[in-house]
Amino acid sequence: MTQQPAKKLYIHDVCVRDGFQMESVFVPTDAKVDLINRLSLTGLAKIEVTSFSSPKAIPALADAESVLVNLNRVPTVEYTALIPNARGCERALKCELDEHNVVMSASETHNRANLRMTRDQSLAQFAEIVRLTNGTVAVNASLSTAFGCPFDGQICDDDLLANIDRIAEIGIKRLTLCDTTGMANPAQVRRICELVLTRFPELTVTAHFHNTRGMGLANCIAALEGGITRFDASLAGLGGCPFAPGASGNACTEDMVHMFNAMGYDTGIDVANLIPLANEIPSLVGHDVPGQVMKAGSYDRIYPMPDWLGGKEQTRLAGSGNALIDPECRVTEVAK
Amino acid sequence: MTQQPAKKLYIHDVCVRDGFQMESVFVPTDAKVDLINRLSLTGLAKIEVTSFSSPKAIPALADAESVLVNLNRVPTVEYTALIPNARGCERALKCELDEHNVVMSASETHNRANLRMTRDQSLAQFAEIVRLTNGTVAVNASLSTAFGCPFDGQICDDDLLANIDRIAEIGIKRLTLCDTTGMANPAQVRRICELVLTRFPELTVTAHFHNTRGMGLANCIAALEGGITRFDASLAGLGGCPFAPGASGNACTEDMVHMFNAMGYDTGIDVANLIPLANEIPSLVGHDVPGQVMKAGSYDRIYPMPDWLGGKEQTRLAGSGNALIDPECRVTEVAK
Repeated sequence: MTQQPAKKLYIHDVCVRDGFQMESVFVPTDAKVDLINRLSLTGLAKIEVTSFSSPKAIPALADAESVLVNLNRVPTVEYTALIPNARGCERALKCELDEHNVVMSASETHNRANLRMTRDQSLAQFAEIVRLTNGTVAVNASLSTAFGCPFDGQICDDDLLANIDRIAEIGIKRLTLCDTTGMANPAQVRRICELVLTRFPELTVTAHFHNTRGMGLANCIAALEGGITRFDASLAGLGGCPFAPGASGNACTEDMVHMFNAMGYDTGIDVANLIPLANEIPSLVGHDVPGQVMKAGSYDRIYPMPDWLGGKEQTRLAGSGNALIDPECRVTEVAK
Repeated sequence: MTQQPAKKLYIHDVCVRDGFQMESVFVPTDAKVDLINRLSLTGLAKIEVTSFSSPKAIPALADAESVLVNLNRVPTVEYTALIPNARGCERALKCELDEHNVVMSASETHNRANLRMTRDQSLAQFAEIVRLTNGTVAVNASLSTAFGCPFDGQICDDDLLANIDRIAEIGIKRLTLCDTTGMANPAQVRRICELVLTRFPELTVTAHFHNTRGMGLANCIAALEGGITRFDASLAGLGGCPFAPGASGNACTEDMVHMFNAMGYDTGIDVANLIPLANEIPSLVGHDVPGQVMKAGSYDRIYPMPDWLGGKEQTRLAGSGNALIDPECRVTEVAK
């Protein structure tokens, strides 16, 4: 009996854009570049490195061009940036991104509040961006509030699908379903992911969750069961939502990678390489962060026995890691 | 086409025992009693109210008898307490509990470190407790480190099942599978729950997860998919693990109830009644707590639009709650 290879998952880090954009401190350009360069070596499939928003609107990301010009790019990583409008696209085209990530909301009210445009106006911008990029750069559409809107409530399926229809008609081939304010639950996520993938088999779909109500990783698994293999996440769980002060931010990259790896999936990432990077985030942003694995270590971390139980003689317990688990007893979970 | 009734889930709160036992402050007996009394009115199926440990070992719970004598018990709630040994059982028998929750570890090292007994000695205590209770009180066995041990690593299936065999042979009919230090992952949880429920159909099985590595709620869903309908959780996510300083504690009661309700399951609990109780925990213990829904509110919380978008005229957005979601658009998730 041959074992099936582990299913390949693609992890995208959005910390430098979605995380840093909320911060009141300006993370120095050098620090951003250094972080992205080191993230590039971990096995991430994509990194969202900045936003080409107005520097007045998002001063934390006012250094978009400087960040991009200074990167040491790795060929296996796609570098993307948020492109809020055609003006941002024109700036970004000079920076040779692999992808332009355009954004609109599934709900009219959130689109107007967040982007100060109607959805029709956003779609017109999308069309203009597709024209400007002219096939030289991939375009991904991030659909905010796809699982619910803090103003309008639940998005009904017909509305959601109509939004995606219009995005696809423009010629955009990549879509991210975003749970912008952490309203999604796993039953809903699985159903909606199945629905969207069935209706739009030609689209490459990513899921983007927030852990605002504690369901971030549960929603990732539900999305995976619904057919998704690409996930946005943020190092150290940075990010967040102006509607939920004190609550968690984006789904946490290293917690997600840790979980998927433990379940037997192939993320291509060793979580041990992410943890030191996550542990640098609090000093960059000046506050504690929601990531858990950066505090607790990997599930297979082994502790020495208490001294009174003979801990000092337990040489097999020195250090940590997989090798210390009794090989005869080891249970390998095989991903579906 | 008639809709199937929502699947019934049974939520047990362990905050006053598993949460408070870790705290350096002594929560006054009156505050414990008041909290338990109010928790009793929320729809919880079971509340673990204290531990009959040595007051020297766990001073935070030295008031076990006083707590129990002062409760206003609600007939629909089972009141349980941790019983570490036969001596504790003798004390507890005077307090008329609905259940004695005995405890041992699936791994020998953790049993010795935590209980200062071998597993054989623990099982002998269990037999003595079954003899002492003599059928007058239900006995539940909590099996710690069932999904992995911080000293011994992974527990192999044969070891796990052998532990449960011996517990069942003593005549214990209730079992809790505990992920004591948050090592479990959803693939493992689903597999092990299915395995245990198949091998021991006569046992009433509860799952007890910690959110140490962010997988608490994902593991609950995996357990549910594996056949579990009973879950331990801790108000405000209190609890924790000496091996993971700074990491999250037990799976959070109100976050779990919120998720299951949103998914269409019947927990019998309105999360709005748990949130005010959770919000009292930080002042009782003197520090912040990991609960998310207590900070973010329910997923169906609706915010007024920004004023410049006409927020003040949006009378339908006043207040919050389900009723504000457009009924024609509302999507109801139906639990499996």
